[in-house]
Amino acid sequence: NGSFPKKNRPLQIINDAEYIICCDGAANSMYKTNKEADIIIGDLDSIDSKYLKNVKSQTISIENQNDNDLRKALNWIAKNIKVKKITIIGITGLREDHTLGNIASFLYNKYDFEIEIITDTGHFYIIREFKTIQTSIGQPISLFCIDEKQRITTEGLKYKLENDSINLYNATLNIAEKEQITISLKLDVPVLVYLYCENEKN
Amino acid sequence: NGSFPKKNRPLQIINDAEYIICCDGAANSMYKTNKEADIIIGDLDSIDSKYLKNVKSQTISIENQNDNDLRKALNWIAKNIKVKKITIIGITGLREDHTLGNIASFLYNKYDFEIEIITDTGHFYIIREFKTIQTSIGQPISLFCIDEKQRITTEGLKYKLENDSINLYNATLNIAEKEQITISLKLDVPVLVYLYCENEKN
Repeated sequence: NGSFPKKNRPLQIINDAEYIICCDGAANSMYKTNKEADIIIGDLDSIDSKYLKNVKSQTISIENQNDNDLRKALNWIAKNIKVKKITIIGITGLREDHTLGNIASFLYNKYDFEIEIITDTGHFYIIREFKTIQTSIGQPISLFCIDEKQRITTEGLKYKLENDSINLYNATLNIAEKEQITISLKLDVPVLVYLYCENEKN
Repeated sequence: NGSFPKKNRPLQIINDAEYIICCDGAANSMYKTNKEADIIIGDLDSIDSKYLKNVKSQTISIENQNDNDLRKALNWIAKNIKVKKITIIGITGLREDHTLGNIASFLYNKYDFEIEIITDTGHFYIIREFKTIQTSIGQPISLFCIDEKQRITTEGLKYKLENDSINLYNATLNIAEKEQITISLKLDVPVLVYLYCENEKN
Protein backbone atom coordinates (compact mmCIF):
# COMPACT_ATOMS: atom_id res chain seq x y z
CA ASN A 1 0.00 0.00 0.00
CA GLY A 2 3.01 2.29 -0.20
CA SER A 3 5.22 3.48 -3.01
CA PHE A 4 7.96 1.17 -4.23
CA PRO A 5 11.30 2.54 -2.99
CA LYS A 6 13.40 4.65 -5.34
CA LYS A 7 16.55 5.20 -3.30
CA ASN A 8 19.57 2.91 -3.36
CA ARG A 9 19.49 1.96 0.31
CA PRO A 10 16.06 0.29 0.38
CA LEU A 11 16.66 -1.25 -3.07
CA GLN A 12 19.99 -2.65 -1.87
CA ILE A 13 18.20 -4.25 1.07
CA ILE A 14 15.94 -6.14 -1.34
CA ASN A 15 18.91 -7.30 -3.38
CA ASP A 16 20.80 -8.46 -0.28
CA ALA A 17 17.79 -10.13 1.36
CA GLU A 18 17.99 -13.77 2.34
CA TYR A 19 14.25 -14.23 2.13
CA ILE A 20 11.63 -11.90 0.64
CA ILE A 21 7.99 -11.74 1.64
CA CYS A 22 5.92 -9.50 -0.55
CA CYS A 23 2.51 -7.99 0.25
CA ASP A 24 0.05 -8.48 -2.55
CA GLY A 25 0.26 -5.63 -5.10
CA ALA A 26 3.89 -4.90 -4.27
CA ALA A 27 4.70 -8.07 -6.20
CA ASN A 28 3.87 -6.15 -9.38
CA SER A 29 6.82 -3.85 -8.72
CA MET A 30 9.36 -6.56 -7.90
CA TYR A 31 10.50 -6.57 -11.55
CA LYS A 32 12.39 -3.37 -10.65
CA THR A 33 14.80 -5.50 -8.63
CA ASN A 34 17.02 -8.49 -9.41
CA LYS A 35 15.05 -10.67 -7.03
CA GLU A 36 11.81 -12.58 -6.87
CA ALA A 37 9.72 -12.76 -3.72
CA ASP A 38 9.88 -16.11 -1.91
CA ILE A 39 6.31 -15.66 -0.73
CA ILE A 40 3.50 -13.32 -1.70
CA ILE A 41 0.91 -12.80 1.06
CA GLY A 42 -2.41 -10.96 1.04
CA ASP A 43 -5.88 -11.21 -0.38
CA LEU A 44 -4.11 -11.35 -3.77
CA ASP A 45 -6.63 -9.04 -5.39
CA SER A 46 -4.03 -6.54 -6.58
CA ILE A 47 -1.50 -8.74 -8.36
CA ASP A 48 -1.24 -8.70 -12.11
CA SER A 49 -2.22 -12.23 -13.23
CA LYS A 50 0.49 -12.16 -15.93
CA TYR A 51 3.06 -11.58 -13.19
CA LEU A 52 1.69 -14.42 -11.06
CA LYS A 53 2.05 -16.90 -13.95
CA ASN A 54 5.69 -16.03 -14.50
CA VAL A 55 7.11 -16.12 -10.98
CA LYS A 56 8.15 -19.01 -8.80
CA SER A 57 6.94 -17.29 -5.63
CA GLN A 58 4.68 -19.23 -3.32
CA THR A 59 1.36 -17.41 -2.83
CA ILE A 60 -0.63 -17.38 0.39
CA SER A 61 -4.14 -15.99 0.18
CA ILE A 62 -5.55 -14.63 3.42
CA GLU A 63 -9.08 -13.24 3.43
CA ASN A 64 -9.70 -11.06 6.45
CA GLN A 65 -11.31 -7.67 6.16
CA ASN A 66 -10.07 -6.58 9.59
CA ASP A 67 -6.39 -6.63 8.65
CA ASN A 68 -4.57 -5.04 5.76
CA ASP A 69 -1.97 -6.96 3.76
CA LEU A 70 0.91 -5.73 5.93
CA ARG A 71 -0.63 -7.04 9.15
CA LYS A 72 -1.70 -10.26 7.41
CA ALA A 73 1.93 -10.81 6.41
CA LEU A 74 3.28 -9.97 9.89
CA ASN A 75 0.81 -12.29 11.59
CA TRP A 76 1.63 -15.06 9.12
CA ILE A 77 5.37 -14.62 9.74
CA ALA A 78 4.84 -14.68 13.53
CA LYS A 79 2.94 -17.97 13.23
CA ASN A 80 4.96 -19.76 10.57
CA ILE A 81 8.58 -18.65 10.42
CA LYS A 82 11.32 -18.58 13.02
CA VAL A 83 13.03 -15.31 12.27
CA LYS A 84 15.21 -12.96 14.31
CA LYS A 85 14.77 -9.75 12.38
CA ILE A 86 12.73 -8.43 9.49
CA THR A 87 13.27 -5.27 7.47
CA ILE A 88 10.18 -3.70 5.95
CA ILE A 89 10.27 -1.44 2.92
CA GLY A 90 7.61 0.23 0.79
CA ILE A 91 4.94 0.83 3.45
CA THR A 92 4.92 4.62 3.26
CA GLY A 93 4.21 7.06 0.46
CA LEU A 94 1.14 7.20 -1.78
CA ARG A 95 -1.99 7.13 0.39
CA GLU A 96 -1.42 9.08 3.60
CA ASP A 97 -4.03 7.07 5.50
CA HIS A 98 -2.17 3.84 4.73
CA THR A 99 1.15 5.38 5.73
CA LEU A 100 -0.35 6.52 9.03
CA GLY A 101 -2.17 3.21 9.66
CA ASN A 102 0.83 1.05 8.70
CA ILE A 103 3.26 2.95 10.93
CA ALA A 104 0.76 3.21 13.80
CA SER A 105 0.10 -0.52 13.85
CA PHE A 106 3.64 -1.04 15.22
CA LEU A 107 2.71 1.11 18.22
CA TYR A 108 0.00 -1.37 19.23
CA ASN A 109 1.22 -4.79 18.14
CA LYS A 110 4.17 -6.70 19.54
CA TYR A 111 6.10 -9.29 17.61
CA ASP A 112 8.84 -11.63 18.81
CA PHE A 113 11.19 -10.64 15.99
CA GLU A 114 13.08 -7.37 15.62
CA ILE A 115 11.54 -4.98 13.06
CA GLU A 116 13.10 -2.10 11.15
CA ILE A 117 11.35 -0.01 8.51
CA ILE A 118 13.44 1.60 5.78
CA THR A 119 11.87 4.38 3.70
CA ASP A 120 13.19 6.71 1.02
CA THR A 121 13.70 9.43 3.63
CA GLY A 122 14.65 7.62 6.80
CA HIS A 123 14.63 4.70 9.12
CA PHE A 124 12.08 3.59 11.73
CA TYR A 125 13.16 1.35 14.62
CA ILE A 126 10.59 -0.31 16.84
CA ILE A 127 12.09 -0.32 20.32
CA ARG A 128 11.22 -2.56 23.24
CA GLU A 129 13.18 -2.42 26.51
CA PHE A 130 16.57 -1.13 25.29
CA LYS A 131 18.37 -0.31 22.07
CA THR A 132 21.65 1.21 20.93
CA ILE A 133 21.37 2.97 17.55
CA GLN A 134 24.22 4.16 15.32
CA THR A 135 23.63 7.78 14.28
CA SER A 136 25.61 10.65 12.85
CA ILE A 137 26.13 13.81 14.91
CA GLY A 138 23.37 16.29 14.10
CA GLN A 139 21.01 13.64 12.73
CA PRO A 140 17.33 14.54 13.29
CA ILE A 141 15.52 11.98 15.44
CA SER A 142 11.89 11.63 16.50
CA LEU A 143 10.26 9.33 19.05
CA PHE A 144 6.63 8.21 19.15
CA CYS A 145 4.56 6.29 21.70
CA ILE A 146 0.81 5.94 22.26
CA ASP A 147 0.91 4.98 25.90
CA GLU A 148 1.74 7.76 28.36
CA LYS A 149 2.47 5.18 31.05
CA GLN A 150 5.63 4.27 29.13
CA ARG A 151 8.75 5.97 30.54
CA ILE A 152 11.75 6.68 28.33
CA THR A 153 15.38 7.48 29.11
CA THR A 154 17.83 8.49 26.38
CA GLU A 155 21.60 9.00 26.09
CA GLY A 156 23.22 10.96 23.27
CA LEU A 157 20.21 13.10 22.28
CA LYS A 158 20.23 16.91 22.50
CA TYR A 159 16.92 17.01 24.39
CA LYS A 160 17.39 14.27 26.97
CA LEU A 161 14.50 12.16 28.16
CA GLU A 162 14.81 10.99 31.75
CA ASN A 163 12.09 8.60 32.70
CA ASP A 164 9.74 10.81 30.65
CA SER A 165 6.49 9.97 28.90
CA ILE A 166 5.86 11.08 25.32
CA ASN A 167 2.97 11.01 22.86
CA LEU A 168 2.68 11.03 19.05
CA TYR A 169 3.82 14.61 18.47
CA ASN A 170 5.76 16.04 21.40
CA ALA A 171 9.07 14.21 20.84
CA THR A 172 9.64 14.95 17.16
CA LEU A 173 12.38 17.60 17.09
CA ASN A 174 15.35 15.86 18.66
CA ILE A 175 18.92 15.67 17.38
CA ALA A 176 21.74 13.15 17.87
CA GLU A 177 24.73 14.63 19.68
CA LYS A 178 26.81 11.47 19.51
CA GLU A 179 27.52 8.79 16.94
CA GLN A 180 25.59 6.35 19.03
CA ILE A 181 22.47 6.86 21.08
CA THR A 182 20.74 4.61 23.57
CA ILE A 183 17.08 4.39 24.42
CA SER A 184 15.79 2.56 27.51
CA LEU A 185 12.15 1.86 28.25
CA LYS A 186 10.50 1.05 31.55
CA LEU A 187 7.54 -0.90 30.19
CA ASP A 188 7.10 -3.43 27.41
CA VAL A 189 5.18 -0.96 25.23
CA PRO A 190 6.59 -0.23 21.75
CA VAL A 191 8.32 3.08 21.07
CA LEU A 192 8.93 4.09 17.46
CA VAL A 193 12.17 5.90 16.70
CA TYR A 194 12.64 7.65 13.36
CA LEU A 195 16.03 8.77 12.02
CA TYR A 196 15.84 11.25 9.18
CA CYS A 197 18.55 10.52 6.59
CA GLU A 198 18.86 13.93 4.97
CA ASN A 199 22.46 13.42 4.01
CA GLU A 200 21.87 10.31 1.97
CA LYS A 201 22.60 11.10 -1.62
CA ASN A 202 20.63 8.25 -3.06
CA ASN B 1 7.83 21.06 7.55
CA GLY B 2 6.01 19.46 4.66
CA SER B 3 6.30 19.65 0.91
CA PHE B 4 4.69 22.62 -0.84
CA PRO B 5 1.56 21.37 -2.65
CA LYS B 6 1.80 20.57 -6.35
CA LYS B 7 -1.80 19.76 -7.20
CA ASN B 8 -4.37 22.30 -8.35
CA ARG B 9 -6.79 21.85 -5.50
CA PRO B 10 -4.50 22.88 -2.63
CA LEU B 11 -2.95 25.64 -4.78
CA GLN B 12 -6.44 26.95 -5.61
CA ILE B 13 -7.19 27.13 -1.89
CA ILE B 14 -4.20 29.43 -1.38
CA ASN B 15 -5.28 31.64 -4.25
CA ASP B 16 -8.88 31.83 -2.96
CA ALA B 17 -7.89 32.35 0.69
CA GLU B 18 -9.17 35.39 2.56
CA TYR B 19 -6.29 35.37 4.98
CA ILE B 20 -3.03 33.41 4.81
CA ILE B 21 -0.92 32.39 7.78
CA CYS B 22 2.36 30.85 6.82
CA CYS B 23 4.63 28.68 9.01
CA ASP B 24 8.22 29.81 8.89
CA GLY B 25 10.11 28.15 5.99
CA ALA B 26 6.94 27.66 3.94
CA ALA B 27 7.12 31.40 3.28
CA ASN B 28 10.07 30.67 0.96
CA SER B 29 7.74 28.73 -1.31
CA MET B 30 4.93 31.26 -1.40
CA TYR B 31 6.41 32.77 -4.58
CA LYS B 32 4.88 29.75 -6.37
CA THR B 33 1.45 31.31 -5.80
CA ASN B 34 -0.15 34.65 -6.66
CA LYS B 35 -0.51 35.53 -2.99
CA GLU B 36 1.56 36.78 -0.11
CA ALA B 37 1.09 35.54 3.43
CA ASP B 38 -0.67 37.97 5.75
CA ILE B 39 1.32 36.64 8.68
CA ILE B 40 4.40 34.45 8.99
CA ILE B 41 4.64 32.60 12.32
CA GLY B 42 7.43 30.47 13.77
CA ASP B 43 10.91 30.72 15.14
CA LEU B 44 11.73 32.33 11.76
CA ASP B 45 15.00 30.42 11.46
CA SER B 46 14.14 28.89 8.09
CA ILE B 47 13.09 31.93 6.04
CA ASP B 48 15.32 33.29 3.33
CA SER B 49 16.27 36.80 4.50
CA LYS B 50 15.99 38.11 0.91
CA TYR B 51 12.37 36.94 0.89
CA LEU B 52 11.63 38.56 4.24
CA LYS B 53 12.88 41.95 2.97
CA ASN B 54 10.60 41.88 -0.07
CA VAL B 55 7.28 40.88 1.43
CA LYS B 56 4.68 42.91 3.26
CA SER B 57 3.79 40.00 5.55
CA GLN B 58 3.72 40.63 9.27
CA THR B 59 6.17 38.33 11.08
CA ILE B 60 5.59 36.85 14.50
CA SER B 61 8.57 35.19 16.12
CA ILE B 62 7.76 32.56 18.73
CA GLU B 63 10.58 30.75 20.50
CA ASN B 64 9.43 27.57 22.16
CA GLN B 65 11.29 24.35 21.77
CA ASN B 66 8.31 22.27 22.90
CA ASP B 67 6.14 23.16 19.91
CA ASN B 68 6.84 22.99 16.23
CA ASP B 69 5.90 25.85 13.89
CA LEU B 70 2.51 24.33 13.06
CA ARG B 71 1.42 24.17 16.69
CA LYS B 72 2.89 27.61 17.37
CA ALA B 73 0.73 28.98 14.55
CA LEU B 74 -2.41 27.14 15.73
CA ASN B 75 -1.97 28.32 19.32
CA TRP B 76 -1.39 31.89 18.12
CA ILE B 77 -4.55 31.77 15.98
CA ALA B 78 -6.59 30.37 18.89
CA LYS B 79 -5.42 33.23 21.10
CA ASN B 80 -5.49 36.14 18.66
CA ILE B 81 -7.96 35.68 15.82
CA LYS B 82 -11.69 35.04 15.81
CA VAL B 83 -12.04 32.54 13.01
CA LYS B 84 -14.67 29.92 12.14
CA LYS B 85 -12.64 27.62 9.95
CA ILE B 86 -9.07 27.16 8.81
CA THR B 87 -7.72 25.05 5.97
CA ILE B 88 -4.20 23.73 6.35
CA ILE B 89 -2.00 22.77 3.44
CA GLY B 90 1.61 21.63 3.12
CA ILE B 91 2.00 19.74 6.41
CA THR B 92 2.67 16.30 4.92
CA GLY B 93 5.34 14.97 2.60
CA LEU B 94 9.10 15.23 3.01
CA ARG B 95 10.04 14.09 6.53
CA GLU B 96 7.83 11.20 7.61
CA ASP B 97 8.29 11.99 11.30
CA HIS B 98 6.93 15.50 10.75
CA THR B 99 4.00 14.18 8.73
CA LEU B 100 3.17 11.74 11.51
CA GLY B 101 3.67 14.31 14.30
CA ASN B 102 1.72 17.05 12.51
CA ILE B 103 -1.26 14.85 11.77
CA ALA B 104 -1.20 13.22 15.21
CA SER B 105 -1.25 16.55 17.02
CA PHE B 106 -4.87 17.03 15.86
CA LEU B 107 -5.80 13.84 17.69
CA TYR B 108 -4.76 15.37 21.03
CA ASN B 109 -5.45 19.10 20.75
CA LYS B 110 -8.84 20.76 20.49
CA TYR B 111 -9.42 24.13 18.88
CA ASP B 112 -12.57 26.20 18.77
CA PHE B 113 -12.38 26.62 15.00
CA GLU B 114 -13.10 24.01 12.36
CA ILE B 115 -9.97 22.52 10.75
CA GLU B 116 -9.51 20.78 7.41
CA ILE B 117 -6.20 19.56 6.00
CA ILE B 118 -5.79 19.35 2.24
CA THR B 119 -2.89 17.34 0.83
CA ASP B 120 -1.84 16.35 -2.67
CA THR B 121 -3.52 12.96 -2.23
CA GLY B 122 -6.53 13.62 -0.04
CA HIS B 123 -8.42 15.48 2.59
CA PHE B 124 -8.33 15.19 6.40
CA TYR B 125 -11.30 16.35 8.47
CA ILE B 126 -11.03 16.72 12.21
CA ILE B 127 -14.41 15.68 13.60
CA ARG B 128 -15.93 16.57 16.94
CA GLU B 129 -19.49 15.53 17.84
CA PHE B 130 -21.09 15.27 14.37
CA LYS B 131 -20.26 15.92 10.73
CA THR B 132 -21.77 15.38 7.30
CA ILE B 133 -19.15 14.95 4.56
CA GLN B 134 -19.71 15.06 0.81
CA THR B 135 -18.09 12.03 -0.83
CA SER B 136 -18.26 10.17 -4.11
CA ILE B 137 -19.53 6.58 -4.20
CA GLY B 138 -16.58 4.21 -3.88
CA GLN B 139 -14.30 6.81 -2.34
CA PRO B 140 -11.77 5.26 0.10
CA ILE B 141 -12.13 6.59 3.64
CA SER B 142 -10.13 6.02 6.82
CA LEU B 143 -10.86 6.99 10.42
CA PHE B 144 -8.35 7.49 13.23
CA CYS B 145 -8.70 8.04 16.98
CA ILE B 146 -6.27 7.66 19.90
CA ASP B 147 -8.84 7.23 22.65
CA GLU B 148 -10.65 3.90 22.77
CA LYS B 149 -13.30 5.41 25.04
CA GLN B 150 -14.58 7.38 22.04
CA ARG B 151 -17.61 5.73 20.37
CA ILE B 152 -18.34 6.29 16.69
CA THR B 153 -21.45 5.77 14.59
CA THR B 154 -21.40 6.18 10.80
CA GLU B 155 -23.97 6.34 7.99
CA GLY B 156 -23.12 5.77 4.33
CA LEU B 157 -19.94 3.75 4.83
CA LYS B 158 -19.54 0.16 3.58
CA TYR B 159 -18.26 -1.08 6.96
CA LYS B 160 -20.64 0.59 9.39
CA LEU B 161 -19.54 1.68 12.81
CA GLU B 162 -22.26 1.51 15.46
CA ASN B 163 -21.13 2.98 18.72
CA ASP B 164 -17.73 1.38 18.05
CA SER B 165 -14.28 2.33 19.26
CA ILE B 166 -11.34 2.50 16.86
CA ASN B 167 -7.59 3.06 17.08
CA LEU B 168 -4.93 4.37 14.69
CA TYR B 169 -4.93 1.44 12.27
CA ASN B 170 -8.06 -0.67 12.49
CA ALA B 171 -10.46 1.67 10.63
CA THR B 172 -8.42 2.40 7.52
CA LEU B 173 -10.06 0.37 4.76
CA ASN B 174 -13.55 1.83 4.54
CA ILE B 175 -15.43 2.97 1.42
CA ALA B 176 -18.22 5.50 0.87
CA GLU B 177 -21.44 3.89 -0.38
CA LYS B 178 -23.33 7.18 -0.69
CA GLU B 179 -22.58 10.67 -1.93
CA GLN B 180 -22.79 11.88 1.62
CA ILE B 181 -21.69 10.24 4.83
CA THR B 182 -22.32 11.19 8.45
CA ILE B 183 -20.14 10.57 11.45
CA SER B 184 -21.42 10.95 15.02
CA LEU B 185 -19.26 10.82 18.12
CA LYS B 186 -20.24 10.14 21.70
CA LEU B 187 -17.40 12.02 23.39
CA ASP B 188 -15.63 15.30 22.71
CA VAL B 189 -12.45 13.54 21.59
CA PRO B 190 -11.17 14.33 18.07
CA VAL B 191 -11.57 11.76 15.31
CA LEU B 192 -9.58 12.21 12.11
CA VAL B 193 -11.28 11.27 8.86
CA TYR B 194 -9.24 10.94 5.66
CA LEU B 195 -10.78 10.87 2.19
CA TYR B 196 -8.44 9.59 -0.51
CA CYS B 197 -8.94 11.54 -3.73
CA GLU B 198 -7.64 9.01 -6.24
CA ASN B 199 -9.80 10.32 -9.05
CA GLU B 200 -8.47 13.85 -8.94
CA LYS B 201 -6.58 14.48 -12.10
CA ASN B 202 -4.57 17.41 -10.78
